[in-house]
Amino acid sequence: MSVSILDHRSSARPADRDAHRAHLLTRLRDELSDGEVFTGDDDLDRVATDRSGHRLPGRPLALVRPWTTAGVAATLRLASATGTVVVPRGAGTGLSGGASAPDGSLVLSTERLNRILQIDPADQVAVVQAGVVTADLDAAAAEHGLTYAPDPASWRQSTIGGNIATNAGGLHCVKYGVTRESVLALTAVLADGTVLPVGHRTIKGVAGFDLTGLFVGSEGTLGVVVEATVRLRPRPARTRTLAAWFPSAAAAAAGVLVALAQGVTPSVLELLDAGTLRAIDEGQGTDLAEYGSALLLVQTDGLGADAEIAALAGALVDLGADVDLPEGAEADRYFELRRSGRVLDERLWFVGEDVAVPRSAMGPLLERIERIGAAHGVSTSVVAHAGDGNLHPAFTLPRVTGESEPPLALERAADDLVRAALALGGTITGEHGVGITKRRWLEQELGAPVVDLQRRLKSVFDPAGVLNPHTWLAKEPSWPAS
Amino acid sequence: MSVSILDHRSSARPADRDAHRAHLLTRLRDELSDGEVFTGDDDLDRVATDRSGHRLPGRPLALVRPWTTAGVAATLRLASATGTVVVPRGAGTGLSGGASAPDGSLVLSTERLNRILQIDPADQVAVVQAGVVTADLDAAAAEHGLTYAPDPASWRQSTIGGNIATNAGGLHCVKYGVTRESVLALTAVLADGTVLPVGHRTIKGVAGFDLTGLFVGSEGTLGVVVEATVRLRPRPARTRTLAAWFPSAAAAAAGVLVALAQGVTPSVLELLDAGTLRAIDEGQGTDLAEYGSALLLVQTDGLGADAEIAALAGALVDLGADVDLPEGAEADRYFELRRSGRVLDERLWFVGEDVAVPRSAMGPLLERIERIGAAHGVSTSVVAHAGDGNLHPAFTLPRVTGESEPPLALERAADDLVRAALALGGTITGEHGVGITKRRWLEQELGAPVVDLQRRLKSVFDPAGVLNPHTWLAKEPSWPAS
Repeated sequence: MSVSILDHRSSARPADRDAHRAHLLTRLRDELSDGEVFTGDDDLDRVATDRSGHRLPGRPLALVRPWTTAGVAATLRLASATGTVVVPRGAGTGLSGGASAPDGSLVLSTERLNRILQIDPADQVAVVQAGVVTADLDAAAAEHGLTYAPDPASWRQSTIGGNIATNAGGLHCVKYGVTRESVLALTAVLADGTVLPVGHRTIKGVAGFDLTGLFVGSEGTLGVVVEATVRLRPRPARTRTLAAWFPSAAAAAAGVLVALAQGVTPSVLELLDAGTLRAIDEGQGTDLAEYGSALLLVQTDGLGADAEIAALAGALVDLGADVDLPEGAEADRYFELRRSGRVLDERLWFVGEDVAVPRSAMGPLLERIERIGAAHGVSTSVVAHAGDGNLHPAFTLPRVTGESEPPLALERAADDLVRAALALGGTITGEHGVGITKRRWLEQELGAPVVDLQRRLKSVFDPAGVLNPHTWLAKEPSWPAS
Repeated sequence: MSVSILDHRSSARPADRDAHRAHLLTRLRDELSDGEVFTGDDDLDRVATDRSGHRLPGRPLALVRPWTTAGVAATLRLASATGTVVVPRGAGTGLSGGASAPDGSLVLSTERLNRILQIDPADQVAVVQAGVVTADLDAAAAEHGLTYAPDPASWRQSTIGGNIATNAGGLHCVKYGVTRESVLALTAVLADGTVLPVGHRTIKGVAGFDLTGLFVGSEGTLGVVVEATVRLRPRPARTRTLAAWFPSAAAAAAGVLVALAQGVTPSVLELLDAGTLRAIDEGQGTDLAEYGSALLLVQTDGLGADAEIAALAGALVDLGADVDLPEGAEADRYFELRRSGRVLDERLWFVGEDVAVPRSAMGPLLERIERIGAAHGVSTSVVAHAGDGNLHPAFTLPRVTGESEPPLALERAADDLVRAALALGGTITGEHGVGITKRRWLEQELGAPVVDLQRRLKSVFDPAGVLNPHTWLAKEPSWPAS
């Protein structure tokens, strides 16, 4: 794979480079429609990074927001022909820098491909364009008594295309699977402009390699997804909620294993540790931390919801938990606090992480996180999609006046965490993706031969190496954050 | 990709070819241990095809049954170095000729890699070698109150490696997903002998392309799977069974859609048409066909099993079905008849098929199958994993004394069926794989650009083109059956 991101920066003379870029913009405007190419500072600044805040040196050349698949294809054809880096972009809610744009690149947004093309209640599938917002799809499905299950925390902003690019998870994935389990087919535009439909509308199908699965989670390196056929499911007629309070995070982690041994698959199984409960209390004026040092928030759904929640409650009470069975608005309030409670506090430096471990390793990892915090003198808090062993630890320090960079202790704590997760048989990212910010750990997890194989796979789809070559598959060291 | 299957046949002189083969055998015996290489006629005849019965001209050079991964790697290294075709083989229960061996090839069996390495009740995972029999894994899991969900009809003979190669389905996949949804990680040996572990022991993980998913269903063309980490699930404490009788297959298909709209995910949802009921009655001495012209066999499991079966029963009674709720041995008997009832009758020519369609298209396809049977003068019968829209139609004709080949009418009927499934938005294979016997339809489903892309993907893993190059990715016309 030719990694061409340096081409623009290494032009011998700035004047040549500027002439090349001006020519590229002219050709881009020729190929696309009026109002699809943006070069204003505000636009470029907005799309230069994602929610990770990780910015690369320089600035993108243009933001392209096509109205059509043809516009996506034209942009990619031109990029391949000229060796120009393309950064595919959904809503920009990614957390790993997967949509951080290098100098001279084209940011290719799918946000205008935002039509729900079909909702089929009989087949329980929807056909949507990539720019459809996740929550909008779920709302449209709800009109037919159906739901789109994958629900990343950003689901009110994130798009299906972005969800597919990162194989997004969420609260309900413990029962219904991650995005991969809901994508039956998709249409991707390859780097050379080829429009490639893969997969099938059927639930099952084994004709050929699973290219749909290969695109899901590929973080914009294989092609730009413009359309998808996704699975919908009957909207549960009934849900039940359980809040179980434990004296420690490790005790709550033991509760997770006990809960999952009951022959019940909960529709939500979240763990909030003491640091998270305190953060929510500070942000929302609640008093959660007074009830215990860790909370398991559990939901069951469907016709067995009552029997299931009773079984789980019994098992957790036997384990010594204080169990509450909130209903109605009180139950909703718990989920609202879980989703939005841990707001960013501007008085704090904050490094959020995303690792997953085998479920039995959650207890050991939670204890390890406390030790990591103590060793680096940083505060820790953890929320976890505990049913899947997927933890989001955060490390924080108070901002000191005049500090322009986060203290290194935060990054060091994060590094210790990721290495600890790997040592426990885990992965460096459960659902956020590798992007740029987690690239330094990728080879530790996969090993050099697998990373090399992945590079060769990319080159089959993108021989010119223009699709996100600077992110997780790049050979060079990470770009410095600016 | 160099497709080298013709090399051996096209040697200029038979004497040269024989010398080459003798030399290859000598090297193979040097590399492997005593008792790992077999060249007897009986052995080679046994492994020359799978349960499809599709035999290729000539005979394989040797059967290799290594005791270790090192033996698998040595075989593949030698094959790549000499351009020798390798046919990976599990239990040989495949139905599409994916393990049919061409002349001069090495059949590489994983049946001796048959150890269950670990069952971890806390993580609910098992680590197994590829040759472990599916039912043996489930039995071992049962000792811990767990189950391995994917249950192809051949599960008492089939191996986990073979299940992975074909992404095998089964009765329980409507609730628990196909093999893909139960494989977390695997170790494959590539064509050059590289031992490549991919995936992770965690439930979630998005570091890099989903190579695990790429190997699942690749039918032995990317590597030889030697080990897998698979998901286990709590064994349901309770199951309930429902038998619903309908006046026609189309009415039963309508019942499937109604059942799936109830907000219940049944653990089994099978459809048996009149032809199948008659075949079972003839084979087993039952009188199923007297109860109706089509049967939906439904199971629910878990703590909600009673509420769920009641909801389904109510909805199907409202639809006009005659509903029975068998328990205990009576319920078991239904499943036994479903699994093993449709025995091959030696007085009949039989062509069995495997297609999947969107669930709403099942009714139209079932009606179409009856018309296809009438048009070609052949008898039809259908069993379907109806919850997934996966149909197994069979076409039969009485054997006439002296006939050595099945009448062309059977193949013509099968061809009409597959084309009808494609026209309804379906796939040429829901769970059996493409192998050799379904290759003629592959490009109709995927289109030439996708097939070409798949060939280029294979060449990344197998540049010498030695792993099953003669099956679904071959460019030449199908080998004639002998």
